[in-house]
Amino acid sequence: MKKYSIGIDIGGTNTGFGLVDCEGKIIESLSISTKNYFDYKIYLDEVAKNILFLIEKCPNKELIQGIGIGAPNGNFYKGTIEYAPNLNFIGIIPVKEYIERILSEKGFPLKVTLTNDANAAAIGEMIYGGAKNVKNFIMITLGTGVGSGIVIDGKVVYGNDGFAGEVGHTIVQPEGRLCGCGRRGCVETYSSATGIKKTALELIRETDTKSCLRSLPEEEIGGRSIYEAAKQGDKIAIKCFDITAKMLAVGMANAVAITSPEVIFLFGGLTKAGDLLMIPLKKYFEESLFVVFKNKIELRLSDLDENNAAILGAAALPF
Amino acid sequence: MKKYSIGIDIGGTNTGFGLVDCEGKIIESLSISTKNYFDYKIYLDEVAKNILFLIEKCPNKELIQGIGIGAPNGNFYKGTIEYAPNLNFIGIIPVKEYIERILSEKGFPLKVTLTNDANAAAIGEMIYGGAKNVKNFIMITLGTGVGSGIVIDGKVVYGNDGFAGEVGHTIVQPEGRLCGCGRRGCVETYSSATGIKKTALELIRETDTKSCLRSLPEEEIGGRSIYEAAKQGDKIAIKCFDITAKMLAVGMANAVAITSPEVIFLFGGLTKAGDLLMIPLKKYFEESLFVVFKNKIELRLSDLDENNAAILGAAALPF
Repeated sequence: MKKYSIGIDIGGTNTGFGLVDCEGKIIESLSISTKNYFDYKIYLDEVAKNILFLIEKCPNKELIQGIGIGAPNGNFYKGTIEYAPNLNFIGIIPVKEYIERILSEKGFPLKVTLTNDANAAAIGEMIYGGAKNVKNFIMITLGTGVGSGIVIDGKVVYGNDGFAGEVGHTIVQPEGRLCGCGRRGCVETYSSATGIKKTALELIRETDTKSCLRSLPEEEIGGRSIYEAAKQGDKIAIKCFDITAKMLAVGMANAVAITSPEVIFLFGGLTKAGDLLMIPLKKYFEESLFVVFKNKIELRLSDLDENNAAILGAAALPF
Repeated sequence: MKKYSIGIDIGGTNTGFGLVDCEGKIIESLSISTKNYFDYKIYLDEVAKNILFLIEKCPNKELIQGIGIGAPNGNFYKGTIEYAPNLNFIGIIPVKEYIERILSEKGFPLKVTLTNDANAAAIGEMIYGGAKNVKNFIMITLGTGVGSGIVIDGKVVYGNDGFAGEVGHTIVQPEGRLCGCGRRGCVETYSSATGIKKTALELIRETDTKSCLRSLPEEEIGGRSIYEAAKQGDKIAIKCFDITAKMLAVGMANAVAITSPEVIFLFGGLTKAGDLLMIPLKKYFEESLFVVFKNKIELRLSDLDENNAAILGAAALPF
């Protein structure tokens, strides 16, 4: 008899839900906006409502093994989201406790397992993607922020308090740009969707370089429009990808020096830019690597479908 | 019956040898200069000669379990030293193979186990020092270079090719000072014994600040003289420790973001400066930490005797 689980991917913009079977098939999925919620209780009530909806869709409710959640700054040990810079909810959010209580009240005492969204993607890559036979790898997710999941000897690294794997919040330019986390020069403040937008706005403001981006209203400048412009040879847009790649390369090279992986998988919206990102990224990455690692680390785009990777990874947690 | 092993600590300046019993008692030790050798074969012949000398000193030669070596850029999987910036030997040095052959020819077919010198110190700290009950920690060694050993879930992290744990060669200032490894802005080029000397020489050259260091010949400027001057309130000397601390703090905070340790142990010559290093280091470290890690990570000086930690750690490898 097939077993089931529910995987949830909490992102800064949207929250995706999937009812998944043990073979990784998504039976039913749905999505809600994350950024429209400002009170975590109202948000988690809505999350629970959608879980209950998916439970009702399951061919055999008794065989649901649990709920898996991937979330920014997710704490695996405590089941909390803590100080996530890209969410509207401030402080420590007791996600596991809150949702388990509601589900229990509704007659479904299911266990909730929560981890960092990038750790969930790394687990998805291990189980369903390109990392099936890779024991040491890093998963980098380029979304609203920059997440990462570190796998050593086939196991996700959680560290002492469940927060290991924050390559996005390593500092690569100590006197650099302010990050959402309050410090300066994190990888995330340059190499995320919000980071590349900041770079474009800075270059528009501080240079005279001609660019079709200048004619766009600020809210339309972002990963997609910068990509379209770069494809047409727009100098500012190309420079945006160059800076994104350079800062990410230093952060990745530092993570390599610490963990010595075989492969780095890249995943998320910005990777759709293909060579515009990957060519400068490979160049700067090799330049930034400590000599013993040069020409040894493979950079690969994730094998997983972007919409489902984090949901599948999260869904694998209860199994 | 007591078992024995021989531990060897290869440093940029000296190579220390110890005949050690299974309880961590050093029965006989000796030291040779590393930096006086330029041909690795002549050096390894001398290393083998000293191993044979210690074998002869052992109360029961049959109970020697093997040879453990801690070395800069030591590759645990291959038994090689590869491209170590602080050694005179260029390229890949087949230490394990070379020494095992000599010992075998002399009638002692002992197994040689080699690891990074800082990994050896981390093992020493786990077995004989302050990390006995700590499952997740980082050992930072401040010597000629900056080494590090990363322990996750009680195991030293070697990574895919045996080179994990190079916090000293993470980049904290991409356009910064040239490092011995050929790149710019590594932690090591600021926060090692050679790094603090470079800082002092720079400050002497580029500022007008009064300093007793100005009257010293260049070869006498180093960790010890800078420490003595700083104790007397010398502004340049104090600034040297401040810069050393600041750069190390960023590298440590980045390593925390990736591995989430409970404690960071500090070890080696520069730690003898005590508060002159540790007060600014703690301040910059907390400032540099990602919010979820603030006020959670303990900074501790190593419990181990500096002269013996790496030898004891190396000696623990064959057991």
